[in-house]
Amino acid sequence: MSVFFFLILIFILYFKYPFNHPFSLQKETKEINAARTFIDILAMKIALLQLDPTVGDLAGNSLLIAGAVRRAPEFDLAVTSELALLGYPPRDLLLNADFVERSWDALRSLAQELADLPPILVGLAEPNRSEVGRPLFNSAALLRRGRVERTFKKTLLPTYDVFDEDRYFEPASEPQILELADAILGISICEDIWNDRDFCRRRRYHTDPVEELVAAGAQAVVNLSASPFTVGKQKHREAMLAELARKHKIPFFYVNQVGGNDDLVFDGRSCAFDRGGRLVARAQGFVEDIIIADSACPAGGLAAIARDDFAPESEIWRALVLGTRDYVHKCGFSAVLLGLSGGIDSSIVAAIAAQALGPQNVLGVLMPSPYTSSASVQDASELARNLGIKTMVLGIADIMKSYDRELAGPFRNLPKDVTEENIQARIRGNLLMALSNKFGLVLLTTGNKSELAVGYCTIYGDMSGGLAVISDVPKSMVYRMARWLNLQGREIIPASVLHKAPTAELRFNQTDQDSLPAYEVLDDILERYLQQHQSKEEILSQGYDEAMVEKVLRLVKNAEFKRRQAAPGLKVTDRAFGSGWRMPVACRAW
Amino acid sequence: MSVFFFLILIFILYFKYPFNHPFSLQKETKEINAARTFIDILAMKIALLQLDPTVGDLAGNSLLIAGAVRRAPEFDLAVTSELALLGYPPRDLLLNADFVERSWDALRSLAQELADLPPILVGLAEPNRSEVGRPLFNSAALLRRGRVERTFKKTLLPTYDVFDEDRYFEPASEPQILELADAILGISICEDIWNDRDFCRRRRYHTDPVEELVAAGAQAVVNLSASPFTVGKQKHREAMLAELARKHKIPFFYVNQVGGNDDLVFDGRSCAFDRGGRLVARAQGFVEDIIIADSACPAGGLAAIARDDFAPESEIWRALVLGTRDYVHKCGFSAVLLGLSGGIDSSIVAAIAAQALGPQNVLGVLMPSPYTSSASVQDASELARNLGIKTMVLGIADIMKSYDRELAGPFRNLPKDVTEENIQARIRGNLLMALSNKFGLVLLTTGNKSELAVGYCTIYGDMSGGLAVISDVPKSMVYRMARWLNLQGREIIPASVLHKAPTAELRFNQTDQDSLPAYEVLDDILERYLQQHQSKEEILSQGYDEAMVEKVLRLVKNAEFKRRQAAPGLKVTDRAFGSGWRMPVACRAW
Repeated sequence: MSVFFFLILIFILYFKYPFNHPFSLQKETKEINAARTFIDILAMKIALLQLDPTVGDLAGNSLLIAGAVRRAPEFDLAVTSELALLGYPPRDLLLNADFVERSWDALRSLAQELADLPPILVGLAEPNRSEVGRPLFNSAALLRRGRVERTFKKTLLPTYDVFDEDRYFEPASEPQILELADAILGISICEDIWNDRDFCRRRRYHTDPVEELVAAGAQAVVNLSASPFTVGKQKHREAMLAELARKHKIPFFYVNQVGGNDDLVFDGRSCAFDRGGRLVARAQGFVEDIIIADSACPAGGLAAIARDDFAPESEIWRALVLGTRDYVHKCGFSAVLLGLSGGIDSSIVAAIAAQALGPQNVLGVLMPSPYTSSASVQDASELARNLGIKTMVLGIADIMKSYDRELAGPFRNLPKDVTEENIQARIRGNLLMALSNKFGLVLLTTGNKSELAVGYCTIYGDMSGGLAVISDVPKSMVYRMARWLNLQGREIIPASVLHKAPTAELRFNQTDQDSLPAYEVLDDILERYLQQHQSKEEILSQGYDEAMVEKVLRLVKNAEFKRRQAAPGLKVTDRAFGSGWRMPVACRAW
Repeated sequence: MSVFFFLILIFILYFKYPFNHPFSLQKETKEINAARTFIDILAMKIALLQLDPTVGDLAGNSLLIAGAVRRAPEFDLAVTSELALLGYPPRDLLLNADFVERSWDALRSLAQELADLPPILVGLAEPNRSEVGRPLFNSAALLRRGRVERTFKKTLLPTYDVFDEDRYFEPASEPQILELADAILGISICEDIWNDRDFCRRRRYHTDPVEELVAAGAQAVVNLSASPFTVGKQKHREAMLAELARKHKIPFFYVNQVGGNDDLVFDGRSCAFDRGGRLVARAQGFVEDIIIADSACPAGGLAAIARDDFAPESEIWRALVLGTRDYVHKCGFSAVLLGLSGGIDSSIVAAIAAQALGPQNVLGVLMPSPYTSSASVQDASELARNLGIKTMVLGIADIMKSYDRELAGPFRNLPKDVTEENIQARIRGNLLMALSNKFGLVLLTTGNKSELAVGYCTIYGDMSGGLAVISDVPKSMVYRMARWLNLQGREIIPASVLHKAPTAELRFNQTDQDSLPAYEVLDDILERYLQQHQSKEEILSQGYDEAMVEKVLRLVKNAEFKRRQAAPGLKVTDRAFGSGWRMPVACRAW
């Protein structure tokens, strides 16, 4: 019996005094670490390298990263954005095995070149050597003492909207922890921090890598991101990062890519939050920037927090300027042309191009027809003078007549219809492309999102061009941007452009509202339908006329064949036409 | 001590006599099930409904399914293809909550309408009611006695090439078993059967649903598929199904969709294999068909195995005919037009269109320029006579002159270059689009894959059109198809078309080989690069000239901006340009 009591006694003692419990050692270590965090992290300087890589340009991106690291002031760890060595998004370049191999050669050279500096985390793709699973990982490689020491893998792989990461990547299977000096850093990549159970309306993933990093002892979380700009997104990012930092009581260091790659514009605005959830550093928006985030910096000290302007007009303007500049330059061009109609759309696109590339690199082409009013020509000329861009005038009346003659036979006795309007738009498209071909200029298209949604545009006509600058900007926002622009210094967009009724001038006395509802109404219906995924019934509950709403939705469906062949357009809303809009053409959905 | 020996004795007995082992019960049940399989499955008749749904057409697809079920002879279970009620692929229609809701209304109506018949499995999307995860499941719903009794979910979600299923769907979490009469059926959907460890060169997924179904007692596997056609794929499918059936010693019933939906053509050829891996039934290729698969049918009895022709020319021809017919009809049109140049490409496209829609629904337009030889006009006319299609002649010389006059100023003193060639192609594009607009005809583009790869085509010119019929057929295969076609009865493609050197006739005495390598060489390089993902070094190891290979690869990269705006093209190879080709435009990858 004494043996029995002895066992009971041991049992009680075992649980009564947790310092004897096998798990207590870990717990104690954690407490010490927590205390140490406060000191170590205070002493840790992380360089956030907010760079503008070109997709696929391994040599150029290596130089960009090396230059930035060399320019960075003293740091303990430097961090690039997601897949920085490849440029985000590399898309199907990732399927060329050769491409990923060569990127590792570039990475090893980079490691050797920067061997004398503190460690650097560089984003790139990593082959999955296992027999099973998708071919790559989305990783961050740690360069230290001239070597690629190890990698950290992404866990949550966004596959929605413009993102296709499940197409290429296998997820990490465990928390990605970096021990650096005495600090324990959790390494996360972009989406990894976007599945918080308290912050997300609906969680898309079953795991939360941030929770797992914290459980594994992370004293701070570093995030390599490539998060495309949409209006208002930075506020959302900062609210979420603040919430995560506060909730887990650890600092967050967030590095975002900057620059335009095809339809996506990355706004940068890398930032850091202290363990109280206070913003302690923010890089500039829409430009390259290197900041040293250091949570020793008191929350009130705003020195490292770049000023920014979160007004939608300002955000969109800067996004389109950057997106246009990068698209043109990264395609290997320096100058652009566009048709100037005297309308608001081509006016704002010309202004964006002049800002992006310099007015000397912008050619505005006026192509009057018999239906073009003299006011339109005057407005276009005034705009060009305001901007200081070059102009050229090419009439289309004679070419129109030559088509009429050739088609007189087949079209005999048939009434005029949209066919003749489209011919005009396509003559203009052909002239613009001829100038583009002859002089090596990128043609910019000037259609807005409202038009592209309902098909109020001519395929192979005004839709022709290499980049659709404002194809994700609704018409009412085009007006808001124009008014905002005129308040930034001097009048750019002529007042008459702002005040006349919009018209395509493809027949006499035509206005857009002949065939479309007022743009404020149209834009509200489109936003409900496209962005909020509302059904026809939900839209009708706003009191709109049923026949009108049905017409708009039918127009959206019927324009799918045009959008399928549209130029890449710069994305600024949560749902843009383009790589994130994947609708069937041959279908009967309504 | 006696207690100790007693324990040892029990231990030995426990392992010595496995009938006492807790796992032995399961094993015994399995053996009984295996014996039962042989009887039950022999008695089971499964109707494979190989139908051609239209994407999004819930009412039409319901009618199609109901009609097929009513027409089917006696059966114990009827099975549609994957997502048959929605049409595959529904793409972003799935993101309209409204669309999925309405499909369930349609499903419930269908259940009521078919209440008097044996159970039916219908493919559609199912909302994921959990708080976490992607919004939908890719499911098969069991309709029985007027009700939607339950659903079976897809486990493996293809997200590569043209497939985007991770964008929409959450995977099943357990084997999907249907007990029907006394039989235990494993229900799988498309990709679920494509991860076999012995058959796949590299497994993309960590689980094998077929193994799990077998482990869960499945006595047969039913598969609802929507597997797009590519050359030679049916042989691959049948080899894999035979292997699975043999390996697991159970029959497989495979139902595939048929028909064209945008760029994808589904070839049907639904089939069944007995437990010995013998093909016991195969539906016809490229047409709707309903077959009753019954493994009681002896393997040697070929009555239910549709004859088929696996020659690549025959397969591609039938795919393009079906894809063209369905695209035109599902877009709501009945007739088409195309430019006839007298060359091989427009000739074969005219022949495909005439077969698909009837010659009375095809208009060939000849648009000679000063560079067009009289032989070309004769060849085009002869082809049109052979096919019995209508023709029209529209000269472009006068329109060319009107452009020349308008551009004389800006182009003064500059040499002629590709600009002037593109103007001609765009005049033709404008004339064809004018006829398309005025008469409600779908314009077919006629460029082949070799041209589209290297950019030997004019954007907004000969690339204009609603459907690119042969844009996934390499030039050398176009020739093979033309020769094959002429052997099917009478000469369709004039011999002179087959024998002259290919030319775009955009300047005097031009031939394609002025600027491109011979097509056999070009096509071999392209196949290695595009389909086999070979690097430049691997291609060079074939002995090709380095400068020539570099030029080809550079041309492929530089044509990306054109392909981005290309019409949907019918996919026939493993890697087509289009929805499964996602390359950046602004990049520096070579």
